[in-house]
Amino acid sequence: MIVMRTDATPEQIHMVVARVEGSGLHAHLSKGEERTVIGVVGDGRPIQQELFLYVPGVDRILPISRPYKLASREFIPHNSRFLLDGVQVGGEDVVVIAGPCSVENRTQLLEVAHAVREAGGHALRGGAFKPRTSPYSFQGLGEAGLEVLAEARQATGLPIVTEVMSPEQVPLIVRYADVLQIGARNMQNYNLLHAAGASQHPILLKRGMSATVEELLMAAEYILSHGNRRVILCERGIRTFETATRNTTDINSIPVLKSLTHLPVILDPSHSTGNWQFVDAIARAGVAAGADGLMVEVHTHPDQALSDGGQSLKPERFAAMMKQVRAIAEAIGRSMAPSRAGMPLSLQPQIVQPIESGNT
Amino acid sequence: MIVMRTDATPEQIHMVVARVEGSGLHAHLSKGEERTVIGVVGDGRPIQQELFLYVPGVDRILPISRPYKLASREFIPHNSRFLLDGVQVGGEDVVVIAGPCSVENRTQLLEVAHAVREAGGHALRGGAFKPRTSPYSFQGLGEAGLEVLAEARQATGLPIVTEVMSPEQVPLIVRYADVLQIGARNMQNYNLLHAAGASQHPILLKRGMSATVEELLMAAEYILSHGNRRVILCERGIRTFETATRNTTDINSIPVLKSLTHLPVILDPSHSTGNWQFVDAIARAGVAAGADGLMVEVHTHPDQALSDGGQSLKPERFAAMMKQVRAIAEAIGRSMAPSRAGMPLSLQPQIVQPIESGNT
Amino acid sequence: MIVMRTDATPEQIHMVVARVEGSGLHAHLSKGEERTVIGVVGDGRPIQQELFLYVPGVDRILPISRPYKLASREFIPHNSRFLLDGVQVGGEDVVVIAGPCSVENRTQLLEVAHAVREAGGHALRGGAFKPRTSPYSFQGLGEAGLEVLAEARQATGLPIVTEVMSPEQVPLIVRYADVLQIGARNMQNYNLLHAAGASQHPILLKRGMSATVEELLMAAEYILSHGNRRVILCERGIRTFETATRNTTDINSIPVLKSLTHLPVILDPSHSTGNWQFVDAIARAGVAAGADGLMVEVHTHPDQALSDGGQSLKPERFAAMMKQVRAIAEAIGRSMAPSRAGMPLSLQPQIVQPIESGNT
Amino acid sequence: MIVMRTDATPEQIHMVVARVEGSGLHAHLSKGEERTVIGVVGDGRPIQQELFLYVPGVDRILPISRPYKLASREFIPHNSRFLLDGVQVGGEDVVVIAGPCSVENRTQLLEVAHAVREAGGHALRGGAFKPRTSPYSFQGLGEAGLEVLAEARQATGLPIVTEVMSPEQVPLIVRYADVLQIGARNMQNYNLLHAAGASQHPILLKRGMSATVEELLMAAEYILSHGNRRVILCERGIRTFETATRNTTDINSIPVLKSLTHLPVILDPSHSTGNWQFVDAIARAGVAAGADGLMVEVHTHPDQALSDGGQSLKPERFAAMMKQVRAIAEAIGRSMAPSRAGMPLSLQPQIVQPIESGNT
Repeated sequence: MIVMRTDATPEQIHMVVARVEGSGLHAHLSKGEERTVIGVVGDGRPIQQELFLYVPGVDRILPISRPYKLASREFIPHNSRFLLDGVQVGGEDVVVIAGPCSVENRTQLLEVAHAVREAGGHALRGGAFKPRTSPYSFQGLGEAGLEVLAEARQATGLPIVTEVMSPEQVPLIVRYADVLQIGARNMQNYNLLHAAGASQHPILLKRGMSATVEELLMAAEYILSHGNRRVILCERGIRTFETATRNTTDINSIPVLKSLTHLPVILDPSHSTGNWQFVDAIARAGVAAGADGLMVEVHTHPDQALSDGGQSLKPERFAAMMKQVRAIAEAIGRSMAPSRAGMPLSLQPQIVQPIESGNT
Repeated sequence: MIVMRTDATPEQIHMVVARVEGSGLHAHLSKGEERTVIGVVGDGRPIQQELFLYVPGVDRILPISRPYKLASREFIPHNSRFLLDGVQVGGEDVVVIAGPCSVENRTQLLEVAHAVREAGGHALRGGAFKPRTSPYSFQGLGEAGLEVLAEARQATGLPIVTEVMSPEQVPLIVRYADVLQIGARNMQNYNLLHAAGASQHPILLKRGMSATVEELLMAAEYILSHGNRRVILCERGIRTFETATRNTTDINSIPVLKSLTHLPVILDPSHSTGNWQFVDAIARAGVAAGADGLMVEVHTHPDQALSDGGQSLKPERFAAMMKQVRAIAEAIGRSMAPSRAGMPLSLQPQIVQPIESGNT
Repeated sequence: MIVMRTDATPEQIHMVVARVEGSGLHAHLSKGEERTVIGVVGDGRPIQQELFLYVPGVDRILPISRPYKLASREFIPHNSRFLLDGVQVGGEDVVVIAGPCSVENRTQLLEVAHAVREAGGHALRGGAFKPRTSPYSFQGLGEAGLEVLAEARQATGLPIVTEVMSPEQVPLIVRYADVLQIGARNMQNYNLLHAAGASQHPILLKRGMSATVEELLMAAEYILSHGNRRVILCERGIRTFETATRNTTDINSIPVLKSLTHLPVILDPSHSTGNWQFVDAIARAGVAAGADGLMVEVHTHPDQALSDGGQSLKPERFAAMMKQVRAIAEAIGRSMAPSRAGMPLSLQPQIVQPIESGNT
Repeated sequence: MIVMRTDATPEQIHMVVARVEGSGLHAHLSKGEERTVIGVVGDGRPIQQELFLYVPGVDRILPISRPYKLASREFIPHNSRFLLDGVQVGGEDVVVIAGPCSVENRTQLLEVAHAVREAGGHALRGGAFKPRTSPYSFQGLGEAGLEVLAEARQATGLPIVTEVMSPEQVPLIVRYADVLQIGARNMQNYNLLHAAGASQHPILLKRGMSATVEELLMAAEYILSHGNRRVILCERGIRTFETATRNTTDINSIPVLKSLTHLPVILDPSHSTGNWQFVDAIARAGVAAGADGLMVEVHTHPDQALSDGGQSLKPERFAAMMKQVRAIAEAIGRSMAPSRAGMPLSLQPQIVQPIESGNT
């Protein structure tokens, strides 16, 4: 949609129309009292805006088509859902992923993993490779951390979510993780998105701290374009002028994303507040707003954590949060995914299963 | 707390100390490996930062005291609560204020007022004087609108919340309204805050769209400094880079405010989303996060509304939202304030009562 | 421009068209491969978006007309300029308004006023009524401050710019001030905009800290709608996530505003940085970007200032800044407005003159 | 600096002190009228905040040390400068890097390169690997693009600046480029920062669109920690609520960065405005504010550009901008680096030289 200036001449309008037609598209004029608007009718691909920005008399260009397709609910009307070690993501049940920010050592991780399982958590998170603002901070255990995660998986039956930071790490991480996490700082690391998409592994894609909802969907589009549809979107707070909390939870994004896309949407109340005191309130809010799950930082000794301790819940508080979240889920007609607490490991499904969609 | 540069000389440090002592305050030095920090110990009043900003060797000044006092929970630990026509605000019960953005005419308002009452709403909102971005938009009915509000009050028993836009309007509005609303654009209109505070009338103070939580509390401090403690704070969304919704609901502000202040905190999901499709999800989230109430726009014919129609709920959707919100309130151990639906008017309390606090 | 969903049915499209025609407007259909867009052709007035937001099949509405008219360069192509005590604002010359944040006492103001005049400043600023975030801060001298400003005017010949905070103050302030300043916090105080516009006095309108350029122009439209065309727009920094400076100078707004409006545009580098060390760099940047003038805080004893001392220049630094700004102005083919330094008062023009526009 | 709550008990204060001492640090108490503040005196390394966040009675923690060291001007007081093919970066002269957003083909690049050289540009930019928001947009020519850049280098003598998007691309890109560009979206791609730092190649580091000035310096610290001091910082606009331009140029960051760091600072007015009409005004503003250089998009046929055409200058407009920028540089007592226009290639230095600092 090309909007002409109010003082555009007939010659200028003609020049724009000629350029549209010259590109193999159709021009459609609307002459108002004040100005003329020229619709460009094509085949759905985005037009080259540059073709018109330098033509005299053009005021501005308004894109009409959405810039993503595979991620859109217009393209796939039904919720995408898939099984993660027997737990369905994107369906009626609310799923909770929990664990420490970083894998620090074997004892710490196993303690936390058992606490997560006993409180009813469905998957274990923990970073082996850590993106840190300062080069002087703890950068993660690397592959040794992945091995500890594998041990925790075996001990608890919880599937593993862990972050991948660069394309060349993908083959290593897929050997250990059930879900590859792409962090907020890498949401527009396109080489990484391509590599993660091509792996055909489930992906948890976190929203960049200054990314719009539309940009998040376009980042998902990179992954989906590889035919990989097991993508979970994660709101984790955006950067605003408010400094009372580390980030501002964009709670609006939950119902907005649910209306725009068929992909599952979860909330990370730990990063989106940055303060353990507010995590349970925001976890409740997320589920009340329609989130399909949560990702929460839990630590048995947060005051000794090597990263993000200030936003981690102790196990008792996490267990209390789980009860509150269950009550909220039921209040809106959903339920929590089944707990593995006390379930013998042999009874637990262990295989990531192919996607099902639109046939609940 | 005055932080010196790493290369500050002993003379520069001495000069700062001399200036602190010269102001009748005490200086307290901490010499670290890298730099010296000078604590200024006073009587709790903010120091004059300018005294030190121009002294060579000073790097920056970090304020330690919070800049508000009467509004702080450190000052008054218990929740402030007060009765509004028999409905307690700030207590265990969740309170819902609803109604049209603007009073457009008698028929419209009475229709909406009855719908609000029947769905269980506790107070009626409606603007007679409207702040509008464009001088060419509908600016409200003025005093005629107030008279219609008075009639709706009589017909339904619902107390009235309406906006006051300038100090000289205060005497007029207090004659008609049970609660004076101060809008987001006027949150730092200090003359208005003083006039509203002096009126001793209950005040609903909306957060400015780019105001921090701390600035909201300082605006409340203006009102409280007149001895008027019946102040309701209202989160209504902040301005961020995200354009998918009209504003970004700062859901974090709900638990943050509840931890910092004793005043009741409510959420306006209509302005904070700007889109009727997302209002119920965000209303649920607000109550789940701990809000003491909601303010919601309702209109019987939103497609003909003279303002903000796009974010107004139709009565049926509002009634459905009320049911969902009640379920959420109960899930977190609260309840909805008693509904007036079907209650004879003669049984309803009609008098705004004095504040009670901390003695539930 | 009404954008339909990709899955809109012909009946839904028909319903929208019927509603457009029913409102006395013309509907203009563009059917693309993906979706239909319906242009609404009217008489230039904004349409009632609410009429369409609730119609099934509607995706979103894109406004085409700009929401302001009198302020737009499309409406008045030539720069508006007017004389302020003999100094032309909005013309080729760069104009500098300077003075303390607040009028604190007679000695302070006269000292600063002479320093401003001697350094070549063209007008004197100083607040008698101060909007302060905290009710415990200095709130200004009130009318006594205005009297001191009048004395400084007589002593130096500099016209006076001072802030008006509420509609009822307008009659008082116009008796003393040559230009009424409307502060950032009041940019959308519509009652004040109306009163200021009706006064027919020159107005300096500061951009709100979270107002868009478009909203600034709509606030100006309120004033212009009273036939008062002597309006100066002032960029003073916006609120963003960056905390290294008090505000973020939106330097882009200078050329953007100059392209959208005929009104003069100035920059306030004191508020837009909040730090005296950066004021001269940003003053130079503002003039280099095309600003028609500057408003700068100057204080003879900034370390004793009762407000905003940390962003005030001492007279020597202000004088140095004036030299730098003059060099920048000349580098881009403009000049500084004539200095009054050393000029006998009797030779100075004293009358605010009617606007001239487009006939340099 | 640990700030206790006003109601902290002596026991709580004691517990914090014990924890500080237990970590091998010294605690330094300041007891005010209202509250106690505990200074933690260490050896300059950041303390583990988590140790204290969960201790009852703690209100908040204020860091005093800056989190970066090698990048700070406190550490290296003099400007860092280095030669780039004979052009000094970071010294008195202003340096201009220009070229197309993407390398599209051989003809296009050579045309632009000659135009840049003839207008007095000092280095050629052009992307071979492009980060694009949409997977459906042109993603760059890859290595073929690098070969075209090498040819343009030989034809014009201009050093080459081109973007590297992932760690494994570093060895390839250093073979072709004189300066490795790290884009805004990768500013916190730490694996890439490490790889770029280890290459010992000059780096142009762009500020992330929502990164603070402090975070930019911490990203630079990653590179500097490899002993690589040839780092150029580039302001390219930040994301704010304002949509009138693609980004908001944070012009304040220029003097702020010059005061905090010894590294050269340049401005990219093309990305920071996103609109060719405003590029020259903002280029002038950047140099007026103290930038050491500019990076500008130039294209001979912007209306056919495969990316970012709307913000590219045509050669004539670029040449006019260069004249304006030269005038600004001279107005503030600097000069443009020597032009290569018309200079025989054989006379041009070709070797990237070791860093010199502080000994001009």
